[in-house]
Amino acid sequence: MAAAGSDQTSLLYPWDRLHEVAKSILIGAGTPADISDEVAGLLVWSERIGHHSHGLLRIPQYVERIRSGRLQPAARPEIVSETSTVAVLDGRWGYGQTAASAAAAIGAAKARSAGVSICGAYHINHIGRLGDFTEMCAREGLIAFLFVGGAPTGALGNVAPYGGRAPVWGTNPLAIAIPQGDDVFSLDFATSLIAGGKAAAAKARREQLDSDYLIDADGTLSRDPLALERGGAIRPFGEHKGYALAFAVELLAGALVGAMAPELESGELHNGLLLIVIDPGRLGPESTFRSAVASVVDKVKSTHPAEGFSEVLVPGEPEGRRLIESDRDGVRVPKDLVRDLNQLGAELGVPIHL
Amino acid sequence: MAAAGSDQTSLLYPWDRLHEVAKSILIGAGTPADISDEVAGLLVWSERIGHHSHGLLRIPQYVERIRSGRLQPAARPEIVSETSTVAVLDGRWGYGQTAASAAAAIGAAKARSAGVSICGAYHINHIGRLGDFTEMCAREGLIAFLFVGGAPTGALGNVAPYGGRAPVWGTNPLAIAIPQGDDVFSLDFATSLIAGGKAAAAKARREQLDSDYLIDADGTLSRDPLALERGGAIRPFGEHKGYALAFAVELLAGALVGAMAPELESGELHNGLLLIVIDPGRLGPESTFRSAVASVVDKVKSTHPAEGFSEVLVPGEPEGRRLIESDRDGVRVPKDLVRDLNQLGAELGVPIHL
Repeated sequence: MAAAGSDQTSLLYPWDRLHEVAKSILIGAGTPADISDEVAGLLVWSERIGHHSHGLLRIPQYVERIRSGRLQPAARPEIVSETSTVAVLDGRWGYGQTAASAAAAIGAAKARSAGVSICGAYHINHIGRLGDFTEMCAREGLIAFLFVGGAPTGALGNVAPYGGRAPVWGTNPLAIAIPQGDDVFSLDFATSLIAGGKAAAAKARREQLDSDYLIDADGTLSRDPLALERGGAIRPFGEHKGYALAFAVELLAGALVGAMAPELESGELHNGLLLIVIDPGRLGPESTFRSAVASVVDKVKSTHPAEGFSEVLVPGEPEGRRLIESDRDGVRVPKDLVRDLNQLGAELGVPIHL
Repeated sequence: MAAAGSDQTSLLYPWDRLHEVAKSILIGAGTPADISDEVAGLLVWSERIGHHSHGLLRIPQYVERIRSGRLQPAARPEIVSETSTVAVLDGRWGYGQTAASAAAAIGAAKARSAGVSICGAYHINHIGRLGDFTEMCAREGLIAFLFVGGAPTGALGNVAPYGGRAPVWGTNPLAIAIPQGDDVFSLDFATSLIAGGKAAAAKARREQLDSDYLIDADGTLSRDPLALERGGAIRPFGEHKGYALAFAVELLAGALVGAMAPELESGELHNGLLLIVIDPGRLGPESTFRSAVASVVDKVKSTHPAEGFSEVLVPGEPEGRRLIESDRDGVRVPKDLVRDLNQLGAELGVPIHL
């Protein structure tokens, strides 16, 4: 049952109803209850904070991956090697979220005891929103960096290097979360100018993109979403600087971690994730760190806005506001997606009646 | 004596002659011979790889800071606290290079033994080119991240937050170096659209900048270098993404490290540096990592260039090429700077006769 405030193209639901529905479908697709609960919770969290691209629309994709055998819904990550500061996980092609949250828990525990830790995971599927896992660490008072990359050998990805005209890797996202008052500073972005989904959406609407986010196969800048089908690619954000970051993410998450999957030949790689966790209390008094963070945030927040802006925002702040709104008003779900989820539930023998 | 190839505005010198001259001046300004040798070597290295903004033009600035008492030329960093994975250094207001190279040596040794390490340093002066220190680690087979930031409380910096119209911090650079064949992948950039020096140079030439790199105090985008004097600021690179990175650098290097200087009140901060070093051999076979890095680099290098580019470059590659050129042809030094250095040598009683 949708809440009041639904309109012609979308319906509003309380988030806990969506969590229940998402969990039912994942269980119906063969996922153990605890993993279903965690993955559903993360997908619905993305909806609540306004990142719909990492929300419920992933469910049909995940079920499709389960059906084709590429996602093992019951797989749990296995620790392949471990020291007091380092862990390498084999995600065993389970949900990426399962591997990433295990990495966050292990990385946080190691950083608590050793001051700093690194965790890698290979054989992973889509992990969802990176910030979820860095924020898990930051909510425990730790600083975390997460990199996800590694376009498998032979795979093209969809993002070009700076100065190049063809795809060489994916959107190679990175996230950094830092404790900030009762909240969290959270940076989480793709190193490409736009997400692949944005080009796909423009293509579906038969529209041009609103800027030259792409490079066509002939080497010219383009706003035509069909450029991707012609062998073109999305451009990196921030010109040569964003390209250099995307490249570093590929080497850190792909070459350093993804390439460690034992079945690979030399020079081959899968995608992977690398998490670095730091305990700020090891560098000095935690209260000093927290006061200094607050003073930087205050300085930024008190800056007069530029033309066209009403205020200066801290990374993570927009998500916090959308969370309050959607927990009050409900989460808006497109009717097409509601229909797909209902159909998926019926197919899997778990009628959900959204 | 300048080499052949000098022209009306600049003179060419072999790099070792410049190293000798730089070292003499620093010794003349009261710097111990070993520190002079290291700092001179790093400044001349920047000249050799084409980063003149981090080269010899810094010498008059450093001498000025020594004369005003802000730079203690004989100071050596002191380890304030240390564990097997973490070190905090007090740079004692010596050369930033002295503190940063100590951090690199300590961080590398700890990463070799513990797998990963973090080092912070406060009470530092200008450290020069960040890549010098991450590359020191990468040439030993390690991966390094370096962040420098922390606009002191009350200081304005010269870079605005995204959506803001006033400066809140400096150019907050970051660097990442990763071993790559016999060479090094090296990313090293400011999180601002341009360096402060670029605006200063345009102002000196009474020219406008070639794009809207600045925001004026009235909140509008600007290419007028005088905007900085009116209370405006340089904009962050890469819009909200580059801003988020600049913010993270401020929290990591400033709030986490710079704020640890013991004389500071709660909420105050100095600038600082944070170095993270990882031993890639702890995540799997080093040969697997190196093959995977080579395969990513090959994939990128074999991409057809975009319109207006002749090839796709790996971060660090342009510097390697300029090194070969300047070691063959000499380093070009503007005549104004030659004059300043000669005068400085005379003043300090170390005539250099460039």
